[in-house]
Amino acid sequence: MASATPLLKDELDIVIPTIRNLDFLEMWRPFFEPYHLIIVQDGDPSKTIKVPEGFDYELYNRNDINRILGPKANCISFKDSACRCFGYMVSKKKYIYTIDDDCFVATDPSGHKINALKQHIENLLCPSTPFFFNTLYEPFREGADFVRGYPFSLREGVPTAVSHGLWLNIPDYDAPTQLVKPLERNTRYVDAVLTIPKGTLFPMCGMNLAFDRDLIGAAMYFGLMGDGQPIGRYDDMWAGWCCKVICDHLGLGIKTGLPYIYHSKASNPFVNLRKEYKGIFWQEDIIPFFQSVVLPKEATTVQKCYIELAKQVKEKLTKVDPYFDKLADAMVTWIEAWDELNPAGASVANGKA
Amino acid sequence: MASATPLLKDELDIVIPTIRNLDFLEMWRPFFEPYHLIIVQDGDPSKTIKVPEGFDYELYNRNDINRILGPKANCISFKDSACRCFGYMVSKKKYIYTIDDDCFVATDPSGHKINALKQHIENLLCPSTPFFFNTLYEPFREGADFVRGYPFSLREGVPTAVSHGLWLNIPDYDAPTQLVKPLERNTRYVDAVLTIPKGTLFPMCGMNLAFDRDLIGAAMYFGLMGDGQPIGRYDDMWAGWCCKVICDHLGLGIKTGLPYIYHSKASNPFVNLRKEYKGIFWQEDIIPFFQSVVLPKEATTVQKCYIELAKQVKEKLTKVDPYFDKLADAMVTWIEAWDELNPAGASVANGKA
Repeated sequence: MASATPLLKDELDIVIPTIRNLDFLEMWRPFFEPYHLIIVQDGDPSKTIKVPEGFDYELYNRNDINRILGPKANCISFKDSACRCFGYMVSKKKYIYTIDDDCFVATDPSGHKINALKQHIENLLCPSTPFFFNTLYEPFREGADFVRGYPFSLREGVPTAVSHGLWLNIPDYDAPTQLVKPLERNTRYVDAVLTIPKGTLFPMCGMNLAFDRDLIGAAMYFGLMGDGQPIGRYDDMWAGWCCKVICDHLGLGIKTGLPYIYHSKASNPFVNLRKEYKGIFWQEDIIPFFQSVVLPKEATTVQKCYIELAKQVKEKLTKVDPYFDKLADAMVTWIEAWDELNPAGASVANGKA
Repeated sequence: MASATPLLKDELDIVIPTIRNLDFLEMWRPFFEPYHLIIVQDGDPSKTIKVPEGFDYELYNRNDINRILGPKANCISFKDSACRCFGYMVSKKKYIYTIDDDCFVATDPSGHKINALKQHIENLLCPSTPFFFNTLYEPFREGADFVRGYPFSLREGVPTAVSHGLWLNIPDYDAPTQLVKPLERNTRYVDAVLTIPKGTLFPMCGMNLAFDRDLIGAAMYFGLMGDGQPIGRYDDMWAGWCCKVICDHLGLGIKTGLPYIYHSKASNPFVNLRKEYKGIFWQEDIIPFFQSVVLPKEATTVQKCYIELAKQVKEKLTKVDPYFDKLADAMVTWIEAWDELNPAGASVANGKA
């Protein structure tokens, strides 16, 4: 591929939950300008988001979401960046990159600006190896390979569905950790990409995340957060846990590590604590639930897996809090809306997963 | 701890399978001299290994092994570096560091010599987190922590039994990969330590390895390799798979990543191919075996786990090759010899694991 043609130019959308910061797009211009942007405004629809000249974009506010989804719009969060998943649904591209507006271009240890999108694409285009751990990390990287003792039959790998990037400067801590370590900054650049092993859950952060929409998009639902909901800041976590058990079931991979972005601003820990505190309790039941989920053999598509997961959430987590009953219903609504906007032809790839 | 007093000076032995290279100990002198060395000579007992002045060491050759273990000496490999595990057995210390004589001191990206032993001790002394993946890697390192979404109940972690270090320069490749990529060198310094998740197997390399003898020593058996055996170069792999399933069962952790050593010399790929080729086939049955091993609740000590594992190896792998029948017997002999040399008092810690 010639470097003049950006990778996957016509196959990738960049989804941004909202843009409060005018510098954000200017900083990313060299890397983002060739791609199409989908901006999902998370608050008051009467406010205007200014997008600088030269960007190709579409913008959705709450009125648009209500108009497009009708009564099904109730599965999309309001006044919370979780609304970004509406962008995943309306995209018609194979790949999605999503990033927060307080994430800037990071530099690597040799001082070069990191093209995060390029690294995500590389991660997504090469296989994952979830069945056995490679001690030299990503075996497909230049200068690396599978080490002695790695079974040859497992070296082909499986398709990569998700690429989870990391953050320099402000780490993605929960409110209690933010309160205890207000000055901690992440300065360690770990030059690694690795597959999260099968059967292992991880905290998926939505700040700097790419995925293959055909392979896993229908499970990338960011739940019910924000306005009228009892929790926040678990949108990406919820999506991550759902995606991980579905990827494990369907034989797909999730990578984490490079690329880094520069996370510029810590969110307010007091506000975060209010949003998170129920999640901190509930999580203690949610994790064992996801660790023990078994999806039936008949669940051969992401949609079927997700509907089954919604059923199990309703059965097993509603006793933790009535919120999960509502969430399970919203999960079903999400799939209905997804299928409506992505009719058979468009989502055929899911059936092949 | 004052830097003048080396960490764990009286609690750690360094086990070296043989020393063919006079520079080896000189290079490591600043780091190793304060510790006791156990050298296990892997070949002709009539040859003499010269140990430079100033090192505190004991040396065992085949005659010593035969004298000390009597008929049980048949569980210790001959003419193969797998014999090093005899050193684990005769040690009376809580921690072991083992290193090959072609591994030199590496430098980190800022040009500092890496004290590998110090990093291993740090790895062993801080808990592991095998139940959930932390995307910022080792949460207990300076400047890092658990990220948002990591369940609080899992943050205490479990005791760390094994610290697996890596190699710059010559990577630990199998013979086929060596043949295909003779010039590949590992130049990527990945500044990370991480816990291998529960349920995930990995290829444990014995080149640069430390462990807690009380917690896992009795499972650190390097099998039957070398003289009179059909395979080689699977000694450390075998130990790694056994240790991993036992650690998972007993709630212990295994870390991999830092520290790096500089691996100076590629072994001969043609010789390696001869040693490895049966292992390359057998591995395809061995890995599914270890992935599905279930140890009974009553197996509450490393020894009990290991005896149970030997039983299952005999039952399930002997059909792959009669070698495994012999290996299973040797595993039992190993435990008998271990218990003889490490009577109740000394190995009480195993019972507490």
